[in-house]
Amino acid sequence: MGNDIQRFETGRRMSKAVVHGNTVYLCGQVGIRGQSIEEQTQEALNRVQTLLESVGSDKSRMLQVIIWLKSMEHFDAMNRIWEDWLPEGAAPARACGQSALASDELLVEFTVTAAL
Amino acid sequence: MGNDIQRFETGRRMSKAVVHGNTVYLCGQVGIRGQSIEEQTQEALNRVQTLLESVGSDKSRMLQVIIWLKSMEHFDAMNRIWEDWLPEGAAPARACGQSALASDELLVEFTVTAAL
Amino acid sequence: MGNDIQRFETGRRMSKAVVHGNTVYLCGQVGIRGQSIEEQTQEALNRVQTLLESVGSDKSRMLQVIIWLKSMEHFDAMNRIWEDWLPEGAAPARACGQSALASDELLVEFTVTAAL
Repeated sequence: MGNDIQRFETGRRMSKAVVHGNTVYLCGQVGIRGQSIEEQTQEALNRVQTLLESVGSDKSRMLQVIIWLKSMEHFDAMNRIWEDWLPEGAAPARACGQSALASDELLVEFTVTAAL
Repeated sequence: MGNDIQRFETGRRMSKAVVHGNTVYLCGQVGIRGQSIEEQTQEALNRVQTLLESVGSDKSRMLQVIIWLKSMEHFDAMNRIWEDWLPEGAAPARACGQSALASDELLVEFTVTAAL
Repeated sequence: MGNDIQRFETGRRMSKAVVHGNTVYLCGQVGIRGQSIEEQTQEALNRVQTLLESVGSDKSRMLQVIIWLKSMEHFDAMNRIWEDWLPEGAAPARACGQSALASDELLVEFTVTAAL
């Protein structure tokens, strides 16, 4: 038991990615504290892509993405970066809500489920 | 690669539904801005059912539903519509939290994972 | 149709656990209203473990956990209990956001997806 679950970058608190069957679950990805919404979105999405590639997936294979914004005022700015970053024809199912994040200086977090 | 993922109503920003294996992920469903919590709940759930049926699933086959309410004051009103709408014996796992949504006039959003 | 989905402790509103394929989805688990963040975290996690075991899974087999905290002031206290409770080397992917919960007296909720 257990070999059917692969964990990546596992610490005491979380694994950065967990693979089960043909599905990969990423931990919530954020950008760098204190940066602009555009910069944080770009950095978080870069981290998503790096993580997905590290387990043999890709940003074109995302299934569902939960987006938390600290403030809905950032909705349009986040979406512009998101749409530029996303490969055409590969958009996942998505939901976006407002939530304070682990630090006051974090503006956006992406929680991704993808296909391997 | 890619044929194992089926996307429905795919735009630049999101797909309304994504099928992978025997699981379907829907994008967050809302009702019509400015309407009452009862009307928004009913409309959002109608959209859930329409989407599920369009991919060959059904509201009796939901696995997990994340509900975001703009205000917990609407918890009971939302639940009455939800319980009437749900087929008996087919209730999914569920979580309900408070979150501002994309528009100030949106009161409730349902993010559904279902079996095909 | 339907036999491929197993539901546990199913009421009008939700099932406490739903199994599909090799994946189990739990409904959001909370502690006891009015207790401290440490007590609520411990009780909610005990309930997660009981539910997982009741369907043939285990806290060492969690894939993704969404954590909602009423206040991020409780982030560190929740994490201490979480890390003590988690089997070493078995940390799931995780995201933690701030959300008011169904009752004002509830401080934390865990929404778990696990492998069977």
